[in-house]
Amino acid sequence: MWKAEIRVLLKKSVLDPQGQAVENALGSLGYGNVQDVRIGKYLEVSFDAGSRQEAEAQVREMSERLLTNPVIEDYTFELVEE
Amino acid sequence: MWKAEIRVLLKKSVLDPQGQAVENALGSLGYGNVQDVRIGKYLEVSFDAGSRQEAEAQVREMSERLLTNPVIEDYTFELVEE
Repeated sequence: MWKAEIRVLLKKSVLDPQGQAVENALGSLGYGNVQDVRIGKYLEVSFDAGSRQEAEAQVREMSERLLTNPVIEDYTFELVEE
Repeated sequence: MWKAEIRVLLKKSVLDPQGQAVENALGSLGYGNVQDVRIGKYLEVSFDAGSRQEAEAQVREMSERLLTNPVIEDYTFELVEE
C-alpha cells in the first residue's frame, strides 16, 4: 500500500486572494512579521501499486486528470510505503 | 526569513465528505485501487524570526489561533530557512 502526500498551490503568477486575506488577518492579530501567505490543498491518497515507479506514474496521472488544475496550479508529492 | 509549510487535515474521527467524493470520482475514472482519500489545506507562511525555536513557537500559535480549527483538525508543519 502506498500513500501519496500531495501539495497543491496556485502558480506564483496567479493571485491568491485567500492567502492575502489570511495574511491581513495575521497582521491584525499582531503578527506583523508575516510577509507572505499562500493557501492551497493537501491530499493524502492511499492505493495499491506494484512498485514505486508505478505508484509515481499513477499519482501524476490522477493529479493531472482530476486532483489539480494544471492551468493555474502546481503540485508536488511524496510517496510513503505503508 | 522562515517559511512554514503547514499541512492541515480533518482528524481521523471526523468524516471527510470531500475526500469521499474524490475517492468515488477516482473510482469512476478507473482507479479502483484507491482505498482512501483525505483532503485538507496546505499553507506556506513566510515570516521573520530570530531563531528556529521562536519560529516554531510562532507557527504553533498562529495555527491554533487562526489557521486551523483544533477541535476538528490536526496539523503538522516543517520550517525551512530561506
